[in-house]
Amino acid sequence: MAVSSAERAKSNYEREYLENLCPTGWRNPAPQSRYDLLILGAGPDGIVAAREAVALGARVALIERHRLGGGSLNYGCIPSKALLRTARLYAEMRHAENFGGVSPARIPFDWPAAMMRLQRIRARISRTASASGLSREGIALFFGNARFISPDAVAVDGVTLRFKNALIATGSGPLLPGIPGLAEVGFLTSETVFDLPELPESLLVIGGGPLGCELAQAFARLGTRTVIAHSEPLFLPQEERDAAQMVSDALARDGVEIHLNSKAVKARAEGKMKAVDLLRDGQSMTTTVDEILTGIGRMPAIQGLQLELAGIDYDAERGIHVDDFLRTRNPRIYAAGDVCLEHRFTNTAAASARIVVRNALRRGRERLSTLTIPWCTYTDPEIAHVGLYVQEASERRIPVKTFTIPMHDIDRAIADSEDTGFVKIHLREGSDHILGATVVARNAGEMINTVSLAMATRIGLVALSKVMHAYPTQGSAIQRAAEAYVRSRRPSRLAAWWQSRQI
Amino acid sequence: MAVSSAERAKSNYEREYLENLCPTGWRNPAPQSRYDLLILGAGPDGIVAAREAVALGARVALIERHRLGGGSLNYGCIPSKALLRTARLYAEMRHAENFGGVSPARIPFDWPAAMMRLQRIRARISRTASASGLSREGIALFFGNARFISPDAVAVDGVTLRFKNALIATGSGPLLPGIPGLAEVGFLTSETVFDLPELPESLLVIGGGPLGCELAQAFARLGTRTVIAHSEPLFLPQEERDAAQMVSDALARDGVEIHLNSKAVKARAEGKMKAVDLLRDGQSMTTTVDEILTGIGRMPAIQGLQLELAGIDYDAERGIHVDDFLRTRNPRIYAAGDVCLEHRFTNTAAASARIVVRNALRRGRERLSTLTIPWCTYTDPEIAHVGLYVQEASERRIPVKTFTIPMHDIDRAIADSEDTGFVKIHLREGSDHILGATVVARNAGEMINTVSLAMATRIGLVALSKVMHAYPTQGSAIQRAAEAYVRSRRPSRLAAWWQSRQI
Repeated sequence: MAVSSAERAKSNYEREYLENLCPTGWRNPAPQSRYDLLILGAGPDGIVAAREAVALGARVALIERHRLGGGSLNYGCIPSKALLRTARLYAEMRHAENFGGVSPARIPFDWPAAMMRLQRIRARISRTASASGLSREGIALFFGNARFISPDAVAVDGVTLRFKNALIATGSGPLLPGIPGLAEVGFLTSETVFDLPELPESLLVIGGGPLGCELAQAFARLGTRTVIAHSEPLFLPQEERDAAQMVSDALARDGVEIHLNSKAVKARAEGKMKAVDLLRDGQSMTTTVDEILTGIGRMPAIQGLQLELAGIDYDAERGIHVDDFLRTRNPRIYAAGDVCLEHRFTNTAAASARIVVRNALRRGRERLSTLTIPWCTYTDPEIAHVGLYVQEASERRIPVKTFTIPMHDIDRAIADSEDTGFVKIHLREGSDHILGATVVARNAGEMINTVSLAMATRIGLVALSKVMHAYPTQGSAIQRAAEAYVRSRRPSRLAAWWQSRQI
Repeated sequence: MAVSSAERAKSNYEREYLENLCPTGWRNPAPQSRYDLLILGAGPDGIVAAREAVALGARVALIERHRLGGGSLNYGCIPSKALLRTARLYAEMRHAENFGGVSPARIPFDWPAAMMRLQRIRARISRTASASGLSREGIALFFGNARFISPDAVAVDGVTLRFKNALIATGSGPLLPGIPGLAEVGFLTSETVFDLPELPESLLVIGGGPLGCELAQAFARLGTRTVIAHSEPLFLPQEERDAAQMVSDALARDGVEIHLNSKAVKARAEGKMKAVDLLRDGQSMTTTVDEILTGIGRMPAIQGLQLELAGIDYDAERGIHVDDFLRTRNPRIYAAGDVCLEHRFTNTAAASARIVVRNALRRGRERLSTLTIPWCTYTDPEIAHVGLYVQEASERRIPVKTFTIPMHDIDRAIADSEDTGFVKIHLREGSDHILGATVVARNAGEMINTVSLAMATRIGLVALSKVMHAYPTQGSAIQRAAEAYVRSRRPSRLAAWWQSRQI
């Protein structure tokens, strides 16, 4: 009885969510003669662009193939962060001693309840991007498959829409691995993992990027026997090696079985289980699990767009080719977000969409390369980064000096028993100009925002060292790094000053 | 057996802690002829000043009456934040459903274990301010009672120390209530509450300021039947009323019995219990509890200093009188921290100490009033503030416009099930200049640091609206508030621009 009412509630959330993002019986509006801005794809980039353009008084068409909100809301950040929150609580309950508590003898878990919360959260957020809401805001919203039929027109399920400017914001989809036998035994991606009817007893995660690391840790914390296989020597290939090592250590502490330098080469069914052969240094081993989740990357969603008919350059890996103004080879067509960018993040999708609106509709000359982009992998601890990595700086022959503060020197991190991590700030040597920063901390995503603000507004470490931080906060590690820089300059200048004064 | 080894460990932590902060058998150094800077009190302000002055090459004496580290490390922020972290976990375990989990049937708690963690944490942090460490850094460290004997000398337990400049940084102590019978039945303050041998079954907290609210919530979450009595109509009298109301609601949700507009007027023993009469609107009621904790404020620690002999003005309430350069009436004597400031925060103590060092030793003219001071009350949700309140702005006849973003509009707050609160930014009307901000959120203390940086470096909301934040983070509420400001300016300007372009 309880289950059935829970199930009913769940389907109510799902109904609201789907009704908001892909309403049944939706009727596309009658097309206007020509749109100032026609947008393909209603993810975060497409929706931001549509709203900004409408606010300018432009006539805007927005076309969505599937569901409004994009991968982030439907499959990506939102559901995964919601599950990570649940998993964090389970990790804390299991290790309550770390926090001054006592771990309960029995710690029950209910996957359907966790999924119901996830659907409730998704339904709630879906209200901010609902089809009826966008229409009321003055956006002409079309559901259907769009393809270019000329340099200034698309067809949506047979109806022609003409445009002065267009924006391709179709996003990306999961890259599917070509492992022999995998398709036959069945596997999950970020798009299907939250449809699981129950918590799997065992799970193999293929791929140790952000998605793989986040979900491997989450499932392990919830009680799944979790194995992760990653083809490189360390997780999170983009991040600094000491940061990636901390994630590796954290996964190990949570009981994840880690296979690095390991490629999944073959899959087969064994009864109800799935057996996967992992190859490492020529040696093979087999892991047998209930479910397989792949997170090996994403690829731009460009299929079926007939880009050639609009004179747009592209390739399967990078997606749409754009210049620094986000313009394609066709001067009236722009792209934004995952379909054209190296940084496939929701914030970057939205920021690039804003650039497009200003460049396309307001004769702007804004450049993508001026953005200071922070990002975060939401493992526990989180890994956040903004700006350059040391290696990028070296490649550009920029001399770098780095100041690092370990979180175990920060009072609040110690008091919270959350002292794994560090704040590392990279400077242009001989100046206090911040080139980039990596933060590993429980709330690294929150902390990196401060560095992002400093970088975007060109605040250097001297000024940052004087900014008072609330005490005790973990974010004061950033000020401490700035103070370390100031101290490093001091001896020469100040000692001389003081000596001159003593005379 | 387990308990006794735990007890042993505990006393080891306590031993390390006391050995660091008030070592047995300490021998004061032989006094030098005259010190460039003599500091009374080795709290955060005194220690920061001593270190900064030594780094300048100055001869520094530091005098401590009791324990190094000050109230913050010994009784204040550190132990209370450590306990709050434990309490937060218990709240989450009890309400696991909110986070997609299932609450365990039995949730055991072990007060001695929680206290042992607290002592471990305190011992660890005490290493950063140890007597031997400070001595090695070149600071002449004296333990003893200091009193002025002339405008340029103090006596420490009979030994005379002469100075060019002195800094009074003796901090503050808890204000003790004069409630008839209270002293007789016994009560706890922030200095003794962590010495409790066990979790009290019931507790009356007198005073609904930061300390009272934080600890009332913590004890309730750990399982104590908790009553709080506050003499005003709402908690946290300094904070904005909607923020204070959210704390009140949060305490109620955690099961705290709340008595507002209520004064504790009399206490008496009833068997092993303590009965306290509360008076509200002329009506009296009695609450009977195991323990009483008072947190009605703090007062500057100036007793026994013989300030008159140094020509220093003071009064019992405000403490030492200083000008905006933190100088007392005696031009060679300064004060910093709780003993002279309205804002009794650890970060303010440290920042004011830095001002003193620069003004006293480097002929600086730095003003206290230029500091942008953020602070935070660490209830759940946290309440953080920086800059002016609306009322202060009105008093100064500064026209204010406020932009508010509720946390329930922020994706990460929703996904975390931590969506109680708001970000509220006050602007000087007609500009994008930030006057102040209040944040109520799970991590408000971390979030306020971003606003503090913007204010201290005079970054306005237009620039802030363009700063990319990591997604999804709760801190993006700050950017959203900035965007709301930008949108509010838009219609007039941009609509006109667009219309002119259409022609």
